[in-house]
Amino acid sequence: MLKYQKIAIEIEEYIENNQLQQGNKLPVLETLMTQFDVSKSTIIKALEVLEKKGLIFQVRGSGIFVRRLRRKGYINLLTNQGFKKDLDDFSITSKVVELDVKKASSEVAHNLNIELNSEVYYVKRIRYINGQTLCLEESYIDKAIIPYLNKEIATESIFNYIREALGLKIGFSDSYLYVDVLNQEEAKFLNLKSGLPKLYVENIFYLTNGQSFNFSKVNYNYEQSQFFIQANGYYL
Amino acid sequence: MLKYQKIAIEIEEYIENNQLQQGNKLPVLETLMTQFDVSKSTIIKALEVLEKKGLIFQVRGSGIFVRRLRRKGYINLLTNQGFKKDLDDFSITSKVVELDVKKASSEVAHNLNIELNSEVYYVKRIRYINGQTLCLEESYIDKAIIPYLNKEIATESIFNYIREALGLKIGFSDSYLYVDVLNQEEAKFLNLKSGLPKLYVENIFYLTNGQSFNFSKVNYNYEQSQFFIQANGYYL
Repeated sequence: MLKYQKIAIEIEEYIENNQLQQGNKLPVLETLMTQFDVSKSTIIKALEVLEKKGLIFQVRGSGIFVRRLRRKGYINLLTNQGFKKDLDDFSITSKVVELDVKKASSEVAHNLNIELNSEVYYVKRIRYINGQTLCLEESYIDKAIIPYLNKEIATESIFNYIREALGLKIGFSDSYLYVDVLNQEEAKFLNLKSGLPKLYVENIFYLTNGQSFNFSKVNYNYEQSQFFIQANGYYL
Repeated sequence: MLKYQKIAIEIEEYIENNQLQQGNKLPVLETLMTQFDVSKSTIIKALEVLEKKGLIFQVRGSGIFVRRLRRKGYINLLTNQGFKKDLDDFSITSKVVELDVKKASSEVAHNLNIELNSEVYYVKRIRYINGQTLCLEESYIDKAIIPYLNKEIATESIFNYIREALGLKIGFSDSYLYVDVLNQEEAKFLNLKSGLPKLYVENIFYLTNGQSFNFSKVNYNYEQSQFFIQANGYYL
């Protein structure tokens, strides 16, 4: 971890530990530099990270302020840190229903930018929140990038494994979502009635070099899931 | 508009006009500097804007690449440029159902960070896409910040008015969303049957100084709406 990332985490903990509220002002740059004993450029980089994470906002000529209206129990649509971080007051578990090597269909090949019939891992999982079904997730993972997977890894976190065991860096993601109704098979896995509403999300995850490695389709149990997005100024 | 913003738009047009595809490499920094006749720092700032908008990605030591898998007809959940920009192949119109000055309820006061019973504009609009109902939107707008609104402004774009007529700068936003079913009143406005699925979104928009000025509740017609989110590395 780089120094500015470490400082970003420390400032985040400072906000948390002092129970600072939305709009509370942080110390000025010079004070932060002294407090964390680092250079101005390190503090500036750390603040950029926190701004992009939606934890602070900076007002030119006025200061640095806390941003934390976020409500409890909402899943962040802008992260792949896994549900556990957003839902840390809840018990989140996974069950692997299927783990296979398959040939990429044209849909999968298109989204992973690989040849038709290339080998991919197919992982079908059910996620649970406090014992209730949260979502049914089907992932297609490029086997040329992730050569080995097993049920144990898939029951825990595939992304942690990719990062920690394979040393790959996850770069960015595209998500497409819409509301639909559960078909019979989805309903069966989610232990719900078919015809009930669902949020359907397709995600494509890329490494920092731009290679897509994971295409997933997720069906959320609408009664157990709610989401948030914090957009910063660059999009507005 | 600042120079780097202008250059960002020009590079975006260059990608568009040359029909560059996902993964296509852009010219190196030095070439871009010459091509647009600006300094290195201006190009770097312009590229940062494009990266945050999800239009390019940069690979250290390797170059700048185009990012544009985005599918047509999806509404960007990370922008408030209005639907028109995402849905430029579609005809988008609005009808103002109600425009009133109201006293802020505790929910509105909490989300706008104002006193209970402060005056807010209440705007209820239906949006249409190609003549079909797209969403029913109720907005609560802090009258202390936006002292005047009328039906004409609300039929066009309130955000354009805020930016252009009032000179206010829109900074960031929080969105909370979940799937639910339409109640009778919502269904009536959307010209749908009650009990059908909907995506429900609450948005809070802030000025660059951190003041929240707009709290809105949007009910989407699930058959007419689909969404995308492009997350960049800072969130991953």
